[in-house]
Amino acid sequence: MDQRPIGVFDSGLGGLTALRELRRILPREDLIYFGDTGRVPYGTKGRETILRYARQDVAFLRSFDLKAIVVACGTVSANALAELTAENDLPIFGVVEAAAQAAVRAASNGRVGLIGTSASIRSGAYEREIAKLDSAVAVTSRACPLFVPLVENGRFRPGDKVVELVVEEYLAPVKAAEVDALVLGCTHYPLLADAIGAFMGPGVALIDTGAVCAGHAAQTLGESGLLAERDRGFCRYFVSDSTQDFARLASVFLGETVRDSVERVEIEKY
Amino acid sequence: MDQRPIGVFDSGLGGLTALRELRRILPREDLIYFGDTGRVPYGTKGRETILRYARQDVAFLRSFDLKAIVVACGTVSANALAELTAENDLPIFGVVEAAAQAAVRAASNGRVGLIGTSASIRSGAYEREIAKLDSAVAVTSRACPLFVPLVENGRFRPGDKVVELVVEEYLAPVKAAEVDALVLGCTHYPLLADAIGAFMGPGVALIDTGAVCAGHAAQTLGESGLLAERDRGFCRYFVSDSTQDFARLASVFLGETVRDSVERVEIEKY
Repeated sequence: MDQRPIGVFDSGLGGLTALRELRRILPREDLIYFGDTGRVPYGTKGRETILRYARQDVAFLRSFDLKAIVVACGTVSANALAELTAENDLPIFGVVEAAAQAAVRAASNGRVGLIGTSASIRSGAYEREIAKLDSAVAVTSRACPLFVPLVENGRFRPGDKVVELVVEEYLAPVKAAEVDALVLGCTHYPLLADAIGAFMGPGVALIDTGAVCAGHAAQTLGESGLLAERDRGFCRYFVSDSTQDFARLASVFLGETVRDSVERVEIEKY
Repeated sequence: MDQRPIGVFDSGLGGLTALRELRRILPREDLIYFGDTGRVPYGTKGRETILRYARQDVAFLRSFDLKAIVVACGTVSANALAELTAENDLPIFGVVEAAAQAAVRAASNGRVGLIGTSASIRSGAYEREIAKLDSAVAVTSRACPLFVPLVENGRFRPGDKVVELVVEEYLAPVKAAEVDALVLGCTHYPLLADAIGAFMGPGVALIDTGAVCAGHAAQTLGESGLLAERDRGFCRYFVSDSTQDFARLASVFLGETVRDSVERVEIEKY
């Protein structure tokens, strides 16, 4: 048993899709979420910048006494997980490994699609992880740099013509490759799952990286006897931009009203 | 005569459209450009964050001995110019005043359109400046939050279906208001001028805020006897993200190959 909180972070609000799953499967855990809303997006930036920001995000979260950290950001997981793991003496869970496992399991025809930010796709991290599990799996990958701005601007509702056009443009080559499973390699993308699913068709399994990562973290902590025991855990939210709009936007990602406290952090100081 | 350089900054690369004009009309000036590419975009962030970033941008530029600063960013000009001017003892030129003057001159029917980032439109700064000049001018404004991500992702070339669809969506109410002039209230937008002009029609004057601001700064410095006298000035570039992609992207904004030095700045330290 370990009563300490789990830290969760993302470049912005996308990681809330992982937090949602953590709260569902581990309702007894205390959770501390940091969204770097003042510097979002990460996925269009260079690797060095992503690593610098990720180190600050972890340093801030570690100002609390945590038992583990979930990197609920595809871009950071794909570009900085090795460094963060080497530099910290607590378990750090990224989204890449769990998503690769889920994709290999789901792709019965040996063909997997992968979408993510420019920085995630450029890293080759998902492909490496999939090849480690099954080198016969063929991966068709595509960077989708407009998906995060669309989602962060609330553009994900069914019937949004811009979303439909962008989905078609990005995913046409992935669909043409006749993949069986598609890794949504960014925690923002589950909000576009309806549009993506409608384009790809019902035969393609969509892998929600935030959700599979949450499941993987929960299983590992459980096996190590590190889960908390209490009636219901709390959740505290921290962001680096204004807290004003956070509750409204976050409720969309979480699928429920945010009633917990939201505070602003000067993340540059960490 | 004043041989010191002029500092120019923007949230990212958009301000290069102003720099281009400064180099054209003031070829003898030394120019120092800072693009906060590690934290771009500003226009979706809160006012407090924008102000904090703008103060750091100015503090970095003032590590050089400058004669003036051009705020080549619509979002900072609309949200933080008063503070920056009050806190600094050198001339600071924003884009709002010059753009408002140009719009009032160009709008022979008394109807002006205004587009900008969410933070610029929310500020009401352009409307206030236009009302000061001519309270009878009617302004139809619209936030265009997807324009900056589109431009920063290189999506501005003629025939881009996503750009055409987004332009139509954002500008339909502005066109319906039968404006005579349209303020492109963000220095990224001149790259979308072809698509915007095609939708609005040939009768609508497009106000390039970066260019009119450059003209205004040049005129003011000239009248004060503060221009430089030399054969040809240099230009130095600084960015807060990787310098690697800068030259390629910047050449698109500048319309010429970047041959000058590009360096990275840790802007959080200022």
